[in-house]
Amino acid sequence: MTATIRILGIDPGLRHTGWGVIEQTGARLQHVAHGIISVDPNLPMSERLGGIFEAVGELARHHAPHASGVEETIVNANPRSALKLGQARGAAMAALAMAGISVAEFAPRKIKLSVVGTGTADKTQVMFMVKRLLPRAGEMKEDAADALACAICAAHHMPLEMKRGAA
Amino acid sequence: MTATIRILGIDPGLRHTGWGVIEQTGARLQHVAHGIISVDPNLPMSERLGGIFEAVGELARHHAPHASGVEETIVNANPRSALKLGQARGAAMAALAMAGISVAEFAPRKIKLSVVGTGTADKTQVMFMVKRLLPRAGEMKEDAADALACAICAAHHMPLEMKRGAA
Repeated sequence: MTATIRILGIDPGLRHTGWGVIEQTGARLQHVAHGIISVDPNLPMSERLGGIFEAVGELARHHAPHASGVEETIVNANPRSALKLGQARGAAMAALAMAGISVAEFAPRKIKLSVVGTGTADKTQVMFMVKRLLPRAGEMKEDAADALACAICAAHHMPLEMKRGAA
Repeated sequence: MTATIRILGIDPGLRHTGWGVIEQTGARLQHVAHGIISVDPNLPMSERLGGIFEAVGELARHHAPHASGVEETIVNANPRSALKLGQARGAAMAALAMAGISVAEFAPRKIKLSVVGTGTADKTQVMFMVKRLLPRAGEMKEDAADALACAICAAHHMPLEMKRGAA
C-alpha cells in the first residue's frame, strides 16, 4: 500500500507570503490548496511578523502537512533587503517549528530544476509547469506558484522513510 | 503618582540572543533580570528559530513587560549573514507580537548614544555604563549587556502617554 503524504510549500516575503499544499501518493501529485498571505505594510514591523507567524501557523494546523518546504531566498540583494526578507522567513519558519512540522529548505535553482527540468527557468515557465503538474490548481499568483513549486520539489526530495511513515 | 514601566530589551542572534528586563519609575531605572538564550547550532534551522520564538515568548509571559526594544542589527555584513540574522530577529519579534507586546527598534548608534553619550562607543564602554546605570545587575555577558542597553534606550525614548498609562 502506498502512503499519501501532504506537503506545505512556503515562499516567504514581508509583504506577500505564497503558500501551497499538495499531496503525493507514489509518483502521483495532487493539488490541495494554495494562496497568498498579505500583511498590511503600514503596521509596525513586529505586528507584520506576528501576522505572518499567525497565518502560517493557522495553515499548518488546518492542513496538517507531514512536512514542509521553504524557498531559500536569493541573497544577491543588498544586506538591508536580505535582513528584512530574513525576518519574514524567520517568522514563517518559527511558526512551522512551533506546529511541529519539519522544514526543508530549497534553493531556487533546485526548485526550478525539480519542476521545470532546468535551474535557470524563469517565473513564467515555473508557473506553466506547476499548472501542468497540478491541473486542478486553477489560477494562481506568482508567489503561490513559487510555493507550490517548492512543495513539488520537497515531494521529490522527501526521504523514503518519511513516505513509508506517513498515514 | 509616577507609574513604573517594565521594559524588555532583546539583542537577537541565531546562536545567542541577549535579553534584559528593567523597570523605570520617573527617571529612576532598576535592573530586574537578564540572560542569554542559546540555541543548539546543530539543530535544523526551523527548530533553532522555533527555539528562539519559544524562549522569547516565555520571557514575555514571565516578565509581562509594558514594552520592548530590539536592537536594529548592523547590516554591513554580507547578504547571507544578514538573511540569517534577519531570521533570528523575525522569530524573536514575532514572539513579542504574539505576546501582545509593542516593539520599538533602535539602531546601535542610538543605543550607544543613549547609554554612553556617544554613538561610536565600543562594547566595553557599553557594558561599563550598563553596569553603572544598573548597579544591581552584577556580572553579564556582552549580548545581555547589549540587550539591557537596548532596554535603557527604549526607556529613554518611551512616549509620555505610555508612561502615564502604565499600571
